[in-house]
Amino acid sequence: MKKLEDYVTTIPDFPKKGIMFRDVTTIIQDKDGFRMAIDGLSNLLKGVDYDLIAASESRGFIFGSPIAYREDKGLILFRKKGKLPREVYSQEYDLEYGTATLEVHVDSIKPGDRVVIVDDLIATGGTTEAIIKLIERMGGIVVKVVFVMELMGLKGREYLSGYDVDSLIQYEGI
Amino acid sequence: MKKLEDYVTTIPDFPKKGIMFRDVTTIIQDKDGFRMAIDGLSNLLKGVDYDLIAASESRGFIFGSPIAYREDKGLILFRKKGKLPREVYSQEYDLEYGTATLEVHVDSIKPGDRVVIVDDLIATGGTTEAIIKLIERMGGIVVKVVFVMELMGLKGREYLSGYDVDSLIQYEGI
Repeated sequence: MKKLEDYVTTIPDFPKKGIMFRDVTTIIQDKDGFRMAIDGLSNLLKGVDYDLIAASESRGFIFGSPIAYREDKGLILFRKKGKLPREVYSQEYDLEYGTATLEVHVDSIKPGDRVVIVDDLIATGGTTEAIIKLIERMGGIVVKVVFVMELMGLKGREYLSGYDVDSLIQYEGI
Repeated sequence: MKKLEDYVTTIPDFPKKGIMFRDVTTIIQDKDGFRMAIDGLSNLLKGVDYDLIAASESRGFIFGSPIAYREDKGLILFRKKGKLPREVYSQEYDLEYGTATLEVHVDSIKPGDRVVIVDDLIATGGTTEAIIKLIERMGGIVVKVVFVMELMGLKGREYLSGYDVDSLIQYEGI
């Protein structure tokens, strides 16, 4: 039987030299791989008490959205600068390959809301830290953070210490 | 009982003057609104024989992904230039507010695959036409195209004549 990691394609030197890019599109385009990923993430959330899923543009949407639907939660979008039409909070952060800004609608999370963050990949943890800062600025509580893939060598889980972080596939390198 | 359109927020003059922006984030962030949208789209696909869901970056991912999961289909990503790591086909197209390029992995659709396109909004139909061209270049068959919202005044459905197009909410204007 195929495992989830068998559906991942590794692309050397993308988007730049030295990066082993873990391509999740080959999970997503295969109905069995896709189901395995979503069911696996949902399984990591068993017994967790939460109200909302937080997902960031744009691969986070692909994994966060079916979980929100399946688990009957609202989905909160964290988007790149200028994409959200109403009043936003903004947070700058360092990417693996540069810097960027994430935004969220100011009315999307209420104080005391319990939020799970879903994303495809944890590298350094910088993107997730920006999402956490935005959630906490609104008074939300980050109860768990789940990823399809984790690059252990970049120590993102240590960087996010104090939060409950889990992933489906762990890669030793970066 | 609330209807799906009650969850949409209309923002005048976004992203530029004269555009009535139909904001779907207020559907997505509410678990009842989100379920109504996904169940409604799935309902439009009842009895349709298909293999794959096609969705474009990035709001298309939010609606296409849960349907792919629910209906046990693969999800094919149509992304902006430079985002997909493997060999792609590219298609330029006119946006409502400019021009852009969509790309898809060349191995994502096989000849004879039956494909449903899911997106949040049909305006002029230009983005959808680009997706259709890419699907057909790979030999795929576009069996249906479904949207959450349709701006009737922009006549996108007429522009895509010959294809089976449907939507959940129709707005008279542009």
